[in-house]
Amino acid sequence: VHALSHDAAVRLIEPGRYTADLSDRFNLPSGNVNGGYGLAVCVRALAAELDHPDPLVVSATYLRQLRSGPVEVETERLRGGRRLSVGEARISQGGSEALRVVATFADLSSASGRTEVVGSPPDLPPPQDCLDLAAGLELPDDSIMARTQVRFPTAPGWFSGAPTGVAAAQFWMRLADDEPVDTLALPSMVDLAIPVVFELGEFATTTVELTVHVRARPAPGWLACRVKTDYLIGGYHEEDFEIWDSTGKLVAQSRQLQLLVG
Amino acid sequence: VHALSHDAAVRLIEPGRYTADLSDRFNLPSGNVNGGYGLAVCVRALAAELDHPDPLVVSATYLRQLRSGPVEVETERLRGGRRLSVGEARISQGGSEALRVVATFADLSSASGRTEVVGSPPDLPPPQDCLDLAAGLELPDDSIMARTQVRFPTAPGWFSGAPTGVAAAQFWMRLADDEPVDTLALPSMVDLAIPVVFELGEFATTTVELTVHVRARPAPGWLACRVKTDYLIGGYHEEDFEIWDSTGKLVAQSRQLQLLVG
Repeated sequence: VHALSHDAAVRLIEPGRYTADLSDRFNLPSGNVNGGYGLAVCVRALAAELDHPDPLVVSATYLRQLRSGPVEVETERLRGGRRLSVGEARISQGGSEALRVVATFADLSSASGRTEVVGSPPDLPPPQDCLDLAAGLELPDDSIMARTQVRFPTAPGWFSGAPTGVAAAQFWMRLADDEPVDTLALPSMVDLAIPVVFELGEFATTTVELTVHVRARPAPGWLACRVKTDYLIGGYHEEDFEIWDSTGKLVAQSRQLQLLVG
Repeated sequence: VHALSHDAAVRLIEPGRYTADLSDRFNLPSGNVNGGYGLAVCVRALAAELDHPDPLVVSATYLRQLRSGPVEVETERLRGGRRLSVGEARISQGGSEALRVVATFADLSSASGRTEVVGSPPDLPPPQDCLDLAAGLELPDDSIMARTQVRFPTAPGWFSGAPTGVAAAQFWMRLADDEPVDTLALPSMVDLAIPVVFELGEFATTTVELTVHVRARPAPGWLACRVKTDYLIGGYHEEDFEIWDSTGKLVAQSRQLQLLVG
């Protein structure tokens, strides 16, 4: 059973109301669950509610931390249409809303307009020639670290205790157990990786808002990722993330605003 | 009387409910109002409702076009706190919701954390040495074109009927009549400029979602802007926008997802 699709599943209570059980398999070191996991639950509730299959734009505003355990998700349909449908999901735990998501869904298989691409995929050696930071480690099952496979071309500075001071990285990523990544999983992928501000020696940062654009359905296999933070100002910073699939297509682009804590 | 602050003003009806009169001064050629103007109204309603003065992150999802005339804005407080407050605004016209905005407010004057900036401001000649595309034109008062002053280092390709094929630009911008740009106005500024896909020969594009990060309070004077679209895929494209103030500080960063139409 694949962790993300299994643990992010929602059950319909009545139209516009769902429940889910957050597992401990996406736990952060703090004991809270990863924000991308909470987002995955909301995206699945919206997919059940809306008319189109692919989340085209997802905007998530983080209000409170989520812990493993039962949650409730309320959804609201805001617009239906031939091309796009829009909805909002609100996930609550213990009666308090923790995360609000507004998303526009589309059918990316029928996006037939013009294409002009300026950027190019990360220039990475094949995954088998890259470094597995987790090699030889016994990762506990109740850790976010065990939910992805990651391959770096060279070891990040922070990994050997010497952050480079440059908050930029390129690497391969996929879900654990080769779980396929579909467009419902993509918005979470951008938040499952290690924050790139680790390279600034900053190891605690919290997300205020995350917006993900899903641009295409990913082909199977490893995903090439490019991440950077250019502007840390007064403790607030953006993190920009691109995901390219194994055929060299851009499949997701995201930006989040985060705040250094502690 | 300054156009943006005057025409985006809201009147309280009761807690959580406001009205506004959309003027025709932000009209697009289509006769709809500019999306940044609708956003300005929502940001002002949220500013009236929330505890902190500056919109730190604003995410706007566009549902329907707005026309000049009366609108109603509903606001909802989602979270208060020492550092951040969060709310949602829903603007409706004729009983139909047109725009939903989720925003996190903060006090940027007290953002005292670490600063590390990698990027740099656009490299532009002084505004007085740049080109005023509107020089000698009689702009009608009911047009978005009359609401900003813009100075380009050289004439854009599209301006002389020869789009360059490169969707990137740098220019100076400020509001008409030297209206001061505060943090309430900044989220709208990124949508008041001409879409950079004009340089791809595409003159009709509509916004699905716009997220703006406000990073600092702008100093008075001209704002240096940098805009680009790197990924037009199947008719959908992002537009990334940076605004730097006259002292060389990054004050806003935004990305929107748009769809070519027609």
